[in-house]
Amino acid sequence: MDLTEDELLAAIRKVLSGTAPGVVVGVGDDAAVVEAGSGEQVLTTDMLVEGVHFDRGLSSARDLGYKAIVVNVSDVAAMAASPRFALVSLALPPDTDAAWTMELFGGMRAACDEYALSLIGGDLNRGEVAVVSITVVGEVAPGRAVLRSGAKIGDRVVVTGSLGAAAAGLLLAKSPPGRAVGSDWGRELLAAQFRPVARVGEAQTLAQAGATAMTDISDGLAKDLGRLCAESRVGARVDLGRIPVAESLGPAAEVLDLDPLETALSGGEDYELLATIAPSAVEGARAELRERFRVTLADIGAIIEEGLCAVDRDGREFPLEPKGWDHFERP
Amino acid sequence: MDLTEDELLAAIRKVLSGTAPGVVVGVGDDAAVVEAGSGEQVLTTDMLVEGVHFDRGLSSARDLGYKAIVVNVSDVAAMAASPRFALVSLALPPDTDAAWTMELFGGMRAACDEYALSLIGGDLNRGEVAVVSITVVGEVAPGRAVLRSGAKIGDRVVVTGSLGAAAAGLLLAKSPPGRAVGSDWGRELLAAQFRPVARVGEAQTLAQAGATAMTDISDGLAKDLGRLCAESRVGARVDLGRIPVAESLGPAAEVLDLDPLETALSGGEDYELLATIAPSAVEGARAELRERFRVTLADIGAIIEEGLCAVDRDGREFPLEPKGWDHFERP
Repeated sequence: MDLTEDELLAAIRKVLSGTAPGVVVGVGDDAAVVEAGSGEQVLTTDMLVEGVHFDRGLSSARDLGYKAIVVNVSDVAAMAASPRFALVSLALPPDTDAAWTMELFGGMRAACDEYALSLIGGDLNRGEVAVVSITVVGEVAPGRAVLRSGAKIGDRVVVTGSLGAAAAGLLLAKSPPGRAVGSDWGRELLAAQFRPVARVGEAQTLAQAGATAMTDISDGLAKDLGRLCAESRVGARVDLGRIPVAESLGPAAEVLDLDPLETALSGGEDYELLATIAPSAVEGARAELRERFRVTLADIGAIIEEGLCAVDRDGREFPLEPKGWDHFERP
Repeated sequence: MDLTEDELLAAIRKVLSGTAPGVVVGVGDDAAVVEAGSGEQVLTTDMLVEGVHFDRGLSSARDLGYKAIVVNVSDVAAMAASPRFALVSLALPPDTDAAWTMELFGGMRAACDEYALSLIGGDLNRGEVAVVSITVVGEVAPGRAVLRSGAKIGDRVVVTGSLGAAAAGLLLAKSPPGRAVGSDWGRELLAAQFRPVARVGEAQTLAQAGATAMTDISDGLAKDLGRLCAESRVGARVDLGRIPVAESLGPAAEVLDLDPLETALSGGEDYELLATIAPSAVEGARAELRERFRVTLADIGAIIEEGLCAVDRDGREFPLEPKGWDHFERP
């Protein structure tokens, strides 16, 4: 590091300067102070670890900072809440240069601007590897948060947008350089991995349309659906033919040697919304999402009494394994 | 790790079970939901990195979890606020056993019980080294937070309790086993390092007594006083004879080859309060702290126009170097 901690903090304060609505005391004191909102508060924290969640050789500091904010905003969105404030704790190896660190903060700042939240505090540390730990605080009207635990038997299972591109984007980034990176589908996959989108407005639309349960798909559809069902004490039957597989997985399949459906089911990091909703409410929600956000809503199955199963195009039913990202998976 | 992530999360939820005041949704959903308080909110985040802030060979998982909460509570306290909620993001090496992790959560739970806050959310990750990143949210009456920036020329500089024991405790823990560990002073030093105390009530007492600026001493008195003065755009003159050097540093000096005064000035991790207050208010604050908390208040100097200087017992004045913990210090 070519700056001392205090010099780095001073530089970061410049990047983060400017007063923001509701912020009484921002970066630079023992703690930040904000005005209390009128609703309930939603709080989430998510950590990105070098070598596990990112590789400084693969992603730029700016993309990393941007994504670190977005994955937390996505968790707030999945409660049907609005993000308001962010705090960041960083560990940086001693050889990190100040420019990389400033780019990281630039990316966080850009994401905060995009989603209308303020970065109000943080902590800087030395570490063997880089670690970016973010906390985001949001707001929701009292009693209006949509939990994972509200799914009812007979509800439809719906998913926004498309799945699998983020995981394929990581595969592409790790594969030897080739023409794919310059192709339209290649760029789509990389954008999905390095510049994910949090569905804040879409989640609120689904909540207003009557979503009974909701979560974001961060660890793969199969795994996140398994968690939603476990919290709701129900099961789900998914129609494999209706899974919204990202179109760019088509041309990617051969180049990256991946199975598009499998990638869509288990890939993770798509940050799309997975929700349950009464059958009669699906069409209205779909029309609203299309009109307001140009986002599709796929009706992929139904909530059943118990078990997690998939039905293929030929009507064969088999167990849907809740595969996906497990940080401590046995080898 | 001998458990999967979901198994570990389930076990942790048992340790954290129980509903708490103000918590609408705790651990287990995309985000936690809490009732908004009536005051302003105070938010802080602090990260402990293995090999930098702790060593799994030196501190028990329970002490580490306890301390990780306390250092954040101390930042909230230093604003004269009350802690209410905590979130934790963890990175754990794959070889971490579940028992160690449960002890870590046990320590966090114990600290949360001690300081009356609730652990409401978290994130578990794999990492090369263990990282514990905590965010604590607190509450303070509107306009009542005590910042670093309010010190006025002529104010007295006061410090609660005594300084230097935590840094000496770390030296003792790292030194070869000997009789010192079993002595009263040895145990005091180790307790200061591994079971720090956050001055929550004491800070509110100082605020009510009229403290104009306040911070906790986490990076050493000299450094934290330098930061307070920089934020307040003032200077300070400190009387070295009045620095409250921890008594246990006396017997420790020879065994650990340390200078008690130097350790008290620059050691860090004491989590005592450093405040500025009008001269007329010192006696009242001191009496109140003694009666309510049995905590001493040392009047160590004065706020002056500019510069940071120390006066020794012979009246000689020299610059007080803002030494202390710098995560990126040049070698």
